[in-house]
Amino acid sequence: MPLARYLPAAQWLRGYGRDDLPGDLIAAGIVTIMLIPQSLAYAMLAGLPPQVGLYASVLPLIAYAAFGSSRTLAVGPVAVVSLMTASAIGEFAAPGTAGHAEAALILAFLSGLFLLALGLMRLGFLANLLSHPVISGFISASAVLIAAGQLKHVLGIEASGGNLIALLGAMASHARDANATTIAIGAGSLVFLVWTNASLSRALQRLGVSGTAADLAGKAAPVIAVVATTIVVAALRLHETQGVKIVGEIPAGLPPLTLPGMQWRVWLDLAPAAALIGVVGFVESVSVAHALAAKRRQKIDPDQELVGLGAANVAAAFSGGFPVTGGFARSVVNVAAGANTQLAAVFTAVLIAIATLWLTPAFYFMPHAVLAATIIVAVLRLIDLRTLAHAWKYDRGDALSLVVTALAVLTVGVEAGIVAGVALSIAAYLWRTSRPHLALVGQVPGTEHYRNVLRHRVLTRPEILAVRVDESLYFVNARYLENAIATLVTEHPQARHVVLICSGVNLIDVSALETLAAIDENLQAAGVRLHLAEVKGPLMDRLARVGFLEGLSGRVFLSTHAAMESLALEKDHP
Amino acid sequence: MPLARYLPAAQWLRGYGRDDLPGDLIAAGIVTIMLIPQSLAYAMLAGLPPQVGLYASVLPLIAYAAFGSSRTLAVGPVAVVSLMTASAIGEFAAPGTAGHAEAALILAFLSGLFLLALGLMRLGFLANLLSHPVISGFISASAVLIAAGQLKHVLGIEASGGNLIALLGAMASHARDANATTIAIGAGSLVFLVWTNASLSRALQRLGVSGTAADLAGKAAPVIAVVATTIVVAALRLHETQGVKIVGEIPAGLPPLTLPGMQWRVWLDLAPAAALIGVVGFVESVSVAHALAAKRRQKIDPDQELVGLGAANVAAAFSGGFPVTGGFARSVVNVAAGANTQLAAVFTAVLIAIATLWLTPAFYFMPHAVLAATIIVAVLRLIDLRTLAHAWKYDRGDALSLVVTALAVLTVGVEAGIVAGVALSIAAYLWRTSRPHLALVGQVPGTEHYRNVLRHRVLTRPEILAVRVDESLYFVNARYLENAIATLVTEHPQARHVVLICSGVNLIDVSALETLAAIDENLQAAGVRLHLAEVKGPLMDRLARVGFLEGLSGRVFLSTHAAMESLALEKDHP
Repeated sequence: MPLARYLPAAQWLRGYGRDDLPGDLIAAGIVTIMLIPQSLAYAMLAGLPPQVGLYASVLPLIAYAAFGSSRTLAVGPVAVVSLMTASAIGEFAAPGTAGHAEAALILAFLSGLFLLALGLMRLGFLANLLSHPVISGFISASAVLIAAGQLKHVLGIEASGGNLIALLGAMASHARDANATTIAIGAGSLVFLVWTNASLSRALQRLGVSGTAADLAGKAAPVIAVVATTIVVAALRLHETQGVKIVGEIPAGLPPLTLPGMQWRVWLDLAPAAALIGVVGFVESVSVAHALAAKRRQKIDPDQELVGLGAANVAAAFSGGFPVTGGFARSVVNVAAGANTQLAAVFTAVLIAIATLWLTPAFYFMPHAVLAATIIVAVLRLIDLRTLAHAWKYDRGDALSLVVTALAVLTVGVEAGIVAGVALSIAAYLWRTSRPHLALVGQVPGTEHYRNVLRHRVLTRPEILAVRVDESLYFVNARYLENAIATLVTEHPQARHVVLICSGVNLIDVSALETLAAIDENLQAAGVRLHLAEVKGPLMDRLARVGFLEGLSGRVFLSTHAAMESLALEKDHP
Repeated sequence: MPLARYLPAAQWLRGYGRDDLPGDLIAAGIVTIMLIPQSLAYAMLAGLPPQVGLYASVLPLIAYAAFGSSRTLAVGPVAVVSLMTASAIGEFAAPGTAGHAEAALILAFLSGLFLLALGLMRLGFLANLLSHPVISGFISASAVLIAAGQLKHVLGIEASGGNLIALLGAMASHARDANATTIAIGAGSLVFLVWTNASLSRALQRLGVSGTAADLAGKAAPVIAVVATTIVVAALRLHETQGVKIVGEIPAGLPPLTLPGMQWRVWLDLAPAAALIGVVGFVESVSVAHALAAKRRQKIDPDQELVGLGAANVAAAFSGGFPVTGGFARSVVNVAAGANTQLAAVFTAVLIAIATLWLTPAFYFMPHAVLAATIIVAVLRLIDLRTLAHAWKYDRGDALSLVVTALAVLTVGVEAGIVAGVALSIAAYLWRTSRPHLALVGQVPGTEHYRNVLRHRVLTRPEILAVRVDESLYFVNARYLENAIATLVTEHPQARHVVLICSGVNLIDVSALETLAAIDENLQAAGVRLHLAEVKGPLMDRLARVGFLEGLSGRVFLSTHAAMESLALEKDHP
């Protein structure tokens, strides 16, 4: 089915039944109510005019619905990607200027092209370079950075900075400008949101409301806070009498047709950030999509996801938006409200479009402080100490990657954090494989099993050293092996045979192959022969192809036991 | 023996016998004769005054003799390191100026400090990041670059350039300045050297000369060429009548005491090149040292080698020299001439010092063309197509690393080549491990062995999928495993158990651990349980430590056979 191959929507539209419609319609309504304040807030977080958030919630949703492989993922502006956008475009123009919004379009366009290219070339595995600890450290630190950045809106002061130190410094120096009424609105919203988060769902269930409905009501709390505070500000005209900052006038109308500008220097400068935003957005989104799909026995195709998210970002660039990706909370609400297919996303897009046409006056009195409070509560949930504790217990190297990534994000910035994290996790992996575990093994009496002489009571022969190497052999650890075997032979002067047991060796590269030849040569000079045992099939094919086995002083045995038996006989009958 | 631990010289001096002396003295004499023209030529190659080559052949040799772990390695200026020096300091000042020589001192100092630091922190394994194919491509391309750069001296023209294209272009535009007499000297020397290389040793042996003596005579050919052409130039005053370029006046006197200048910006700018020079010099030198030591059943300590070479470079910086390392041809001559200990190097240093005091007038008429010819013949021997052919046959990824490194050296420059090579070989390794080989296995009838169902006739049960994974599981391949297992289970709807056979799994990092938990969860949702078999001891300890095994839906079996037996029973008696 070639059409469904490139256009997953064709598949689910063909099977679309009347039963699917009510769920999709209800989900669209609920997601729209949740998405309106979120999209305004995330645009604000990115330093863009509020309507940009609404624009990013129309066409991109339809583009993903057509090309994405998840049935229920809800795409749109999200916190971490908005922060990365703010960081990337902040260097080009001051927030609020035309150049700033223009840079956001270019960023979305490049990010979309990058994802499309990865998807079409089936290079999605590149996203795997972001390890779980690096992602965890990155997201947690980004959440702290976002929350700290939003505090200024809760306090009603001006402050900005690309890292935590700059931000806190700027806030401290403006602290006395704090606006009491704004704090009342912001802090009040925070308390309300934290309480509903913690207790509303439980309280409602105790009153007899069903579990799903109670959960949805809990998720609706931000909407309640936004509506209530907007009404209070409008009624008391707090923006005039008390200086409370509000969203203000939003131009009404459908998302405009925009073209990302063709300024090549800006393109070049934004390209690395666009690639990072694309990859981070993809990694976050695809794990949400996997989780949702597993619950309904559906499947996610990572390369198709790249195409879907790429198309969504390109659509954002052509309709006055900014970078988008799949959101976690929003997708969960979508599923809980009954969404069956991406038609729910299409309905959501239509509802948001209607809002941009006729509802913008209703957003006029919305206070910045309440939007900031909803962001803070949303991102604090992203802080993940569990992974740190787990990594610390299981693997210190991974824990270090997590901590370094987080510290780099907090003290330098988001891009530095990602780059440091990836570099460190690759270095940590190379380090781990650079000193392979070597075990001298002996026979478990009465069996054909061979075990580590240090851990078990086993039989050995002084003239045969059977060494199991628990790692693939490649350039990073080849010399280590050479030294280790030279040391072993020096320590066992009676040795006449070294049997290298290769059950854990999945590959041998050219460097290691030459090192093995050198080891063999050096052993021969000392009157010792090198044998191999338990070489895996594909590896054996390759070694045979280059004639390595003929050049070897010793033989190749199928099993350690065969090697020991045969070499022992050789001694008795030389 | 703590003294011998940090000062290997203390060890061999204590055991020094009267028998060792004649060999060390004769070797010192022969190496000195070989080293004088070489050191002048390599200084010229680095763009430095000729005496700098002599200075780099005095104190550095003594420093290595004290701290190095090889008994017979001969240290001094070598071709590839001289090329790297020319490339690094060429950006700071024009060749021949004081700033240029000053930059060479700083480069030697930083390179020495870097090596000392690696050695004292026992970080020698970092040099392993240079894989054999990358080194081979780097050396071959450097040799081509050096030979091309020396051609101008053979032709008697001016030309310079940091890469092959620039060099050839510069030579082409100056081709008509070529000097016929210079070409006669240069080309004549080249023909003589190539002939002696190919046939002299064999011709002498046919005349009854012993093998070793004939070999040494072959190695002495450059000295014969240098002496003969110098005499011809002096006798016919070719530098005046024909414009043949000669070495000219060399200030007589011992190596001066110099201090690397404290210009921090220059230090910062030279630091990356210094680190690369240090690592490349170390890698080249340590493999020579290993080869020499193996022949005499001696041992090389790589960390001590770092200290020895580091001390040699620091000594070069304080005595008017430039970066040095262990040379291959020179060390072979040293051994062949009978050197027993590093005392031979100390004697060589004394002889070179005597030459700087009284012999410099003898170098006055030495033509540049003959020095260039000796360099060309020496470096062409470094071009290594064998490794390329071998890598091409064995592993295309390694062959690609080699070719890309060589092309980057030729078209961009030496530093770009090294960096590209290391990055590519790491990327190639990550790529190889990113798609682990997964084999669905079945029982070989009548045995306890389990083999790939695609390669062997084996017995399987529809409700149990036994999957062997031939790779460590870590962030780069964790998601691949997740997809592969999801696909397998989709293709085998009758499956109720998945047994992951971990005999090839040497490590599982935090990312892969979380992925395994996710796989288990997804499988459970589909009514399938996940079991592990043949988990290695150290890995098992770690998994147990974080309670992973209790959370697993299935069990952990010692062997695949135990798993199959037990799960089959479970089906019969659920």
